[in-house]
Amino acid sequence: MVKKPKRVLVVGGVAGGASAAARIRRLDEECEIIMFERGPHVSFSNCALPFHLSGLIEDHEDLVLMKPDDFYNQYRIDARVYNEVIHIDREKKEVMVKNVVTGEEYTESYDKLILSPGANPIVPPFKGMDEVNVFTIRNVVDIAKLNVFIKENHCNDVTVIGGGFIGIEAAENLKLAGYNVTIVEAMPQIMRPFDYDMVQILHKELVDNGIDLIVDDKVERFEKDTVILESGRKIHAEAVVMAIGVSPETTLAKKAGLELGKTGAIAVNQNFRTSDPDIYAVGDAIEVYNRLLHTQSKLALAGPAQKQARAAADHIYGRPVNNTGVIGSSVIKVFNYNGASTGLTEGLIKATNMQIDYDTVMIIPNDKVGIMPDSEPLHFKLIFEVPTGRVLGAQAIGKGNVDKRIDVIATLIKFNGTLEDLKDLELCYAPPFGTARDVVNFAALVGLNILHSCFKQVHVDEVRGLVESGAYIIDVRDKDEYEEGHIVNAVNIPLGEIRDRIDEIPKDRPVYLHCRSGQRSYNAVMALQHLGFDNVYNVSGSFMGLSFFEYYNDKVTGRKPIVTAYNFE
Amino acid sequence: MVKKPKRVLVVGGVAGGASAAARIRRLDEECEIIMFERGPHVSFSNCALPFHLSGLIEDHEDLVLMKPDDFYNQYRIDARVYNEVIHIDREKKEVMVKNVVTGEEYTESYDKLILSPGANPIVPPFKGMDEVNVFTIRNVVDIAKLNVFIKENHCNDVTVIGGGFIGIEAAENLKLAGYNVTIVEAMPQIMRPFDYDMVQILHKELVDNGIDLIVDDKVERFEKDTVILESGRKIHAEAVVMAIGVSPETTLAKKAGLELGKTGAIAVNQNFRTSDPDIYAVGDAIEVYNRLLHTQSKLALAGPAQKQARAAADHIYGRPVNNTGVIGSSVIKVFNYNGASTGLTEGLIKATNMQIDYDTVMIIPNDKVGIMPDSEPLHFKLIFEVPTGRVLGAQAIGKGNVDKRIDVIATLIKFNGTLEDLKDLELCYAPPFGTARDVVNFAALVGLNILHSCFKQVHVDEVRGLVESGAYIIDVRDKDEYEEGHIVNAVNIPLGEIRDRIDEIPKDRPVYLHCRSGQRSYNAVMALQHLGFDNVYNVSGSFMGLSFFEYYNDKVTGRKPIVTAYNFE
Repeated sequence: MVKKPKRVLVVGGVAGGASAAARIRRLDEECEIIMFERGPHVSFSNCALPFHLSGLIEDHEDLVLMKPDDFYNQYRIDARVYNEVIHIDREKKEVMVKNVVTGEEYTESYDKLILSPGANPIVPPFKGMDEVNVFTIRNVVDIAKLNVFIKENHCNDVTVIGGGFIGIEAAENLKLAGYNVTIVEAMPQIMRPFDYDMVQILHKELVDNGIDLIVDDKVERFEKDTVILESGRKIHAEAVVMAIGVSPETTLAKKAGLELGKTGAIAVNQNFRTSDPDIYAVGDAIEVYNRLLHTQSKLALAGPAQKQARAAADHIYGRPVNNTGVIGSSVIKVFNYNGASTGLTEGLIKATNMQIDYDTVMIIPNDKVGIMPDSEPLHFKLIFEVPTGRVLGAQAIGKGNVDKRIDVIATLIKFNGTLEDLKDLELCYAPPFGTARDVVNFAALVGLNILHSCFKQVHVDEVRGLVESGAYIIDVRDKDEYEEGHIVNAVNIPLGEIRDRIDEIPKDRPVYLHCRSGQRSYNAVMALQHLGFDNVYNVSGSFMGLSFFEYYNDKVTGRKPIVTAYNFE
Repeated sequence: MVKKPKRVLVVGGVAGGASAAARIRRLDEECEIIMFERGPHVSFSNCALPFHLSGLIEDHEDLVLMKPDDFYNQYRIDARVYNEVIHIDREKKEVMVKNVVTGEEYTESYDKLILSPGANPIVPPFKGMDEVNVFTIRNVVDIAKLNVFIKENHCNDVTVIGGGFIGIEAAENLKLAGYNVTIVEAMPQIMRPFDYDMVQILHKELVDNGIDLIVDDKVERFEKDTVILESGRKIHAEAVVMAIGVSPETTLAKKAGLELGKTGAIAVNQNFRTSDPDIYAVGDAIEVYNRLLHTQSKLALAGPAQKQARAAADHIYGRPVNNTGVIGSSVIKVFNYNGASTGLTEGLIKATNMQIDYDTVMIIPNDKVGIMPDSEPLHFKLIFEVPTGRVLGAQAIGKGNVDKRIDVIATLIKFNGTLEDLKDLELCYAPPFGTARDVVNFAALVGLNILHSCFKQVHVDEVRGLVESGAYIIDVRDKDEYEEGHIVNAVNIPLGEIRDRIDEIPKDRPVYLHCRSGQRSYNAVMALQHLGFDNVYNVSGSFMGLSFFEYYNDKVTGRKPIVTAYNFE
């Protein structure tokens, strides 16, 4: 029998800390619970911070979901803001707390201690840091400070360093508020939950909405209101938002001698207990087990933090925790597009040198019945294991409800679902919501065809090479579609004519077929195979996918497009 | 080795038939494929028909997705409209076809025959049928005919008989077009995929949008432009839409001596083969195995029809079919509300006398972070097996993305997922899309509490009885919320005060607690239990759920409300 704690202290009052404290109260009416927060607010919506910049959430006070008084009234939790825990004495089982307003220091004892200190924005020591106005976004004070500064100083030009979630959301909301916004991303792409081929859609959406997006370039130094990149490029910036990423807040844990993991975050066991059996840790500060990568990793997301908090509280009261690891599911809005992702990306598989055979599918069906007025193309990429067909990850980008498709895949991955399972899923359908054969069903069918070698495919990122090497490419769209824009040296043989014009098609070299989204060319590929062509390939994503893939780089590098005109719809 | 068919005939050219024919072409370039359709159109969007009435889909020709020419051009399929198969000679393996325009009859031989004849609207022989203008909605001709009639005759009053999908969608679109619409439903509720408690939200939405909704009343007979109900009520109707339901089109199958199932639909084996090994059947005309009910059942949905079609075609070419049965997932838009459902309902469990122990959860969290401007309450009901916690079904109704939540549950049910699995699901989150702990995660947590007897609950349909019997009900909302509207004899003890006012609460009788949606009262219930109260109950759905549950019946029956004012948000 577990001994009930008389006193639980919680360090950090946002997602993880607040959830843990509330859960403990529900398990135990008698326990004394004190929650320390060094900032002015407990329980604010971290993820909603950027939306204050556009005024979508007008009053920054609205970002605060519960005040200390609410914690007392509803839960009899003593929530102490402006109180920072600065030291843990594990032997005496007490913490030293500093009131950051008065400077006063005091100690509090604990039976169990829960750490939920979060993570800190990474701010590298660039040269000339004091010559620009640098801001970070981690709490309500940060976002209010940035918002007031740019408004009061009538700023025009804001540069965001870093193209992750916070960076992109901040950039969008700043742009919506009327500022000139530049994004500087050191990697060749923004938003790592998306592969390079998929993310080009978001690159396009950012530049189409007037954002100056710079990828594959790094900050070298700052000069007076100027960001200077390694390429030599100079950007005028009256405010600089540093959104490179976050690193786990481990100061307190390290000082207390708690074990850290390989990732540098706090190591916890399956019950979210640290190396000290009386100290638990949850949220952005800990490392979590990625059940697809089979490794510990960092994952700064609110959903997992809340689950960990509940689990830690439960374990304190003797309930074993069912720790199923994480897969990482996320979603972002970028102007008119939504992008969602779950599980592994190709990029992650390659970056981690994971020894796994996989293949991918990219399709662009409509997200609703085509005749509904708000039906929109949905770009969907599915990654599956070979030869098992086990689904490993998926990415969806479009103007419609991409999150629904990714949530379905996340659920499937939880059960180690395969393409066979996915093709059979019975999802709800009516014309205002989707299609009878949903995008995810369709992706599974294409994936099964690939898995069973029913046909061969090439991806949009291979097409430029094909064009440059003079490959034989057939565009099976109708003549009027072809004339509106096509791959520079593609031959137009509409699907309806392909069987009659078969003599025009060479049998001694590879033949690449495409249409608008890949569905008609798939039918053409199957027909040609049956008619004795062994070396035919479908271009996955086809002309629309290619248009999105090529656009951003064409535009920013000024290179010669491989299409006579793009087609985005 | 399976012998490839030289000639495949397909009866019916909509969802199932067209999908089967196209799939066969992809498997076999040489096979001759003829598709017979007695109507003027192949491949039209059945499910989108009602949306023509409001003009959302303006031109009824747009409802036709592919023309016979398209089938020839893309697939070399001979699609013959106005050609009805009227007889199958199983011995000779040929069908007799009648050209319904010319009256000419001819025969065509087959190696394999696929039946996809669909289902017919049920039109009971009411007395006085010729005194009203009766319409049904099953194809493009039907909907165009109805639309032209009501426009050309400047109709004002339209009655829809039947409150299923087609009936409700027709009623909504007619209302949006400006007609006075009455719905007559024989059962005490519309839309059987929703339980009686959930469907009250849709009842309310219909009447709030000016629809005259009559439930629990039947058509007795018609008189001149008048519908007369068994209750004696008379409704003026210049047009009557008969949407009682559909029955499988089995005429041809019956005549040919093919086996029918207990449900009256065509019986098929796991490969969608009828009792004749050369004849397959798919779509609304067949019966399918419900894997939750463990029985054959009818299911007139487009998604399953397409899957069956592909499976049948595959099996003809020697590929075994992975028939996983059906669970039934569906969604409907009703003015500003969306409703989705999957798996079993309480109503279905009771109606089928299924021997299963189950319990339910009803919660009304917001569908997005509360501070986002378009955040809306989402009514969510979850049904799970006791004691396993296996999820059996779910229903979601709200103004936001209910389909996403139900798709997740449908996926979970496919894998026999439990509440434990559901609570752990890692779904994608950002403020414009949901909440860090999604509605479905939250429902699982509440469900686990119920399953593990952590607390007791009563449902909204029990509250009227409690009020009438003078039960002790505590409203734990704040005073101002209570004053805006509350249960007539509820005592207001805000959550923040409950621990201090504990002496006011009787220990010798049951105590029922509620708040707005059930979350604060859950905290209060937990506190009281820890403080020695054994007989406390949370009202699931609480005051908002109760308001929706009581409103429609209060309004139409004129009975005395048990609340001083409703609260719907």
